[in-house]
Amino acid sequence: MAVGLDGRPELIPVAGVRLAAGAAGIRYQGRDDLVLMALPEGASASAVFTRNAFCAAPVVVAREHLRGREPRGLLINSGNANAGTGPGGVADARACCAAAAAVLGCEPGQILPFSTGVIGEPLPVARFEAALPALVDALDGDAWLPAARAIMTTDTVPKGASRRLRVNGGEITLTGIAKGAGMIRPDMATMLAFIATDAAVERTDLDRVLRPAVEASFNRITVDGDTSTNDACVLVATGRGPRLTLAAPEWPRFAALVTDLCQELAQALVRDGEGATKFVTVEVGGGADRDECLRVAYAVAHSPLVKTALYASDPNWGRILAAVGRAGVDGLEVERVEIHLGEVCIVAGGGRAPGYTEEAGQAVMAQEEIPIRIELGRGRHRETVWTTDLSHEYVRINAEYRT
Amino acid sequence: MAVGLDGRPELIPVAGVRLAAGAAGIRYQGRDDLVLMALPEGASASAVFTRNAFCAAPVVVAREHLRGREPRGLLINSGNANAGTGPGGVADARACCAAAAAVLGCEPGQILPFSTGVIGEPLPVARFEAALPALVDALDGDAWLPAARAIMTTDTVPKGASRRLRVNGGEITLTGIAKGAGMIRPDMATMLAFIATDAAVERTDLDRVLRPAVEASFNRITVDGDTSTNDACVLVATGRGPRLTLAAPEWPRFAALVTDLCQELAQALVRDGEGATKFVTVEVGGGADRDECLRVAYAVAHSPLVKTALYASDPNWGRILAAVGRAGVDGLEVERVEIHLGEVCIVAGGGRAPGYTEEAGQAVMAQEEIPIRIELGRGRHRETVWTTDLSHEYVRINAEYRT
Repeated sequence: MAVGLDGRPELIPVAGVRLAAGAAGIRYQGRDDLVLMALPEGASASAVFTRNAFCAAPVVVAREHLRGREPRGLLINSGNANAGTGPGGVADARACCAAAAAVLGCEPGQILPFSTGVIGEPLPVARFEAALPALVDALDGDAWLPAARAIMTTDTVPKGASRRLRVNGGEITLTGIAKGAGMIRPDMATMLAFIATDAAVERTDLDRVLRPAVEASFNRITVDGDTSTNDACVLVATGRGPRLTLAAPEWPRFAALVTDLCQELAQALVRDGEGATKFVTVEVGGGADRDECLRVAYAVAHSPLVKTALYASDPNWGRILAAVGRAGVDGLEVERVEIHLGEVCIVAGGGRAPGYTEEAGQAVMAQEEIPIRIELGRGRHRETVWTTDLSHEYVRINAEYRT
Repeated sequence: MAVGLDGRPELIPVAGVRLAAGAAGIRYQGRDDLVLMALPEGASASAVFTRNAFCAAPVVVAREHLRGREPRGLLINSGNANAGTGPGGVADARACCAAAAAVLGCEPGQILPFSTGVIGEPLPVARFEAALPALVDALDGDAWLPAARAIMTTDTVPKGASRRLRVNGGEITLTGIAKGAGMIRPDMATMLAFIATDAAVERTDLDRVLRPAVEASFNRITVDGDTSTNDACVLVATGRGPRLTLAAPEWPRFAALVTDLCQELAQALVRDGEGATKFVTVEVGGGADRDECLRVAYAVAHSPLVKTALYASDPNWGRILAAVGRAGVDGLEVERVEIHLGEVCIVAGGGRAPGYTEEAGQAVMAQEEIPIRIELGRGRHRETVWTTDLSHEYVRINAEYRT
């Protein structure tokens, strides 16, 4: 189940972007697994990739191509991650780019390749080559939702969002799609996100808006603490709409809107995290610095004991307290720590808060959306991380996936 | 199930140590939950405790009492951790020490208290007081196994081990018991271990033998990455046997034997880890330093994706590779990394090893005991960590515990 998602996001077309999804039979049968996104001349793109040292072949190639000429196409497949495939995997990714370039009429270096799925299997390049001619004929500005569906792996619903912003001289559209749903701890996550705007924005300016937006969104979510080999988030500007520069009065609103859209997509990944039955917000305030707030937040968000208690709707606050205590905050004064479940203070003064009742805790834990707030009482820093519970379904999915 | 443990360890009595286990009704009904271990005059003790900032009340009190007069008794209960209980919890721990001191005829400061179980509930001191007189009457040198059973929480079998060492002037006996089975990542784990020898060893010498032994055993295991509030490992020397000092020719063999016993107990905790169906050894060699070997080993040992693949007996080596890649080793050259499942090389040169077959990997993964060896190709350091898989049973136990 996906917590609070209906799988029917309304996605507004972005002038200049045309997409097509098709069934190439890469691994799955009877469903779409390949997306071609065509961009117009003069488009610019910025991207953020996984920091996993074993990054996938398409990550290597996409990074290289981003340093070259402006991109004309994105080629995205599910079912096979083309990771852990050595030099042969890089050659395969290049061959797929060449095939896409041939049908789009551009250079191979103008194609950005992305893959998600099983690690360590060779990419079936011939199936890409066979499927691409039909995809290029089917390109359509209104195909965002089929594209969102085609890039799914263990996701249960397609995920996407749109925003509009009025600026001097017109309106800007921003639309993005993303997929999870396991191996999710973006550092940049097996997540992929593709966002496009019709604004005309220089590549260097796109970088400046994407990096902080990713930091505040995809880099603040975790399902299982496993950072994927393939994570990528791409922001494309087609240039068909109003021009925006760093100096423009609308820039701060544009940057805030990109962050807002990234947060909606990132939270959607968590809401549809593998086996998720809860959507959990872990907010840590009163920290001496950003790093210790994040350490505490991730210690709680990654604790299997906290996550199974969340699954059981059990207000087992002792497990939260133990996770805070082991987070490695030097000189933490436990008497000053407060832990809140929603509006209910559960821990204060080094133990159970005065007046706390099991009934009050239970009422919060019974909700699908659970806010956990921890105050360290040491400073003014504050960070928020979003996560899921750990359910039987998570174990089932990951014990059965690939078999 | 407990992997490779039959629950019937042969435990040799240690001259000077008398034990009794009884049912105090602290939380469980119809089973023993309280242990009194009496020590003779002149005994010495060393202990290592959790580094969790929210350490339990008995940890606070035991640390304090260890700084004072030589101990005459250990008082250990299961069912209630007396953690997250604030100043009231410390007062309760002291009251239990006073009750034990009264029946043993010593000072309260000579009692070391230990608790394991649910966090955040007040300790029912009156039940300790009511149970202690019968316990002191039942003290027996041969009651190690009932004691090992009484300290269990979600453990499925009692755990203990014994060793003997011939020294100039006689023989030394070493016997220990331990309990897990969740919230296990000793940084010193909800683990407790109690080891006794009849050797005559000074407190400062005991410290020197216990710390490296714990570092090489309890501090190298993990079930779920959650460091408990109550972890403690105690080594007692009763002084009834031969005298041993740092200068003695037998000392290195004694130190090695303590480490060996600690490793057997630590591995037993993992073998009986919550929901464990596999016993997994993660060895990381070729590291530039100890820290990076441990970072890689724990990244693999804590990965929910690796652990569910282990549960499924699925040689999904891509998940191991992804965990190595995200461990944060600066400048890792993936081409130099090798990953072995038992004798089977699965990853080399940045991808699947030449000649690797799914059948060969499957054969190793089907075993109950699975060795994973990772070579980083950067230096000469090597570290080993022991862990379990992640099963439906782990989720069931932790979603249902406390309800």
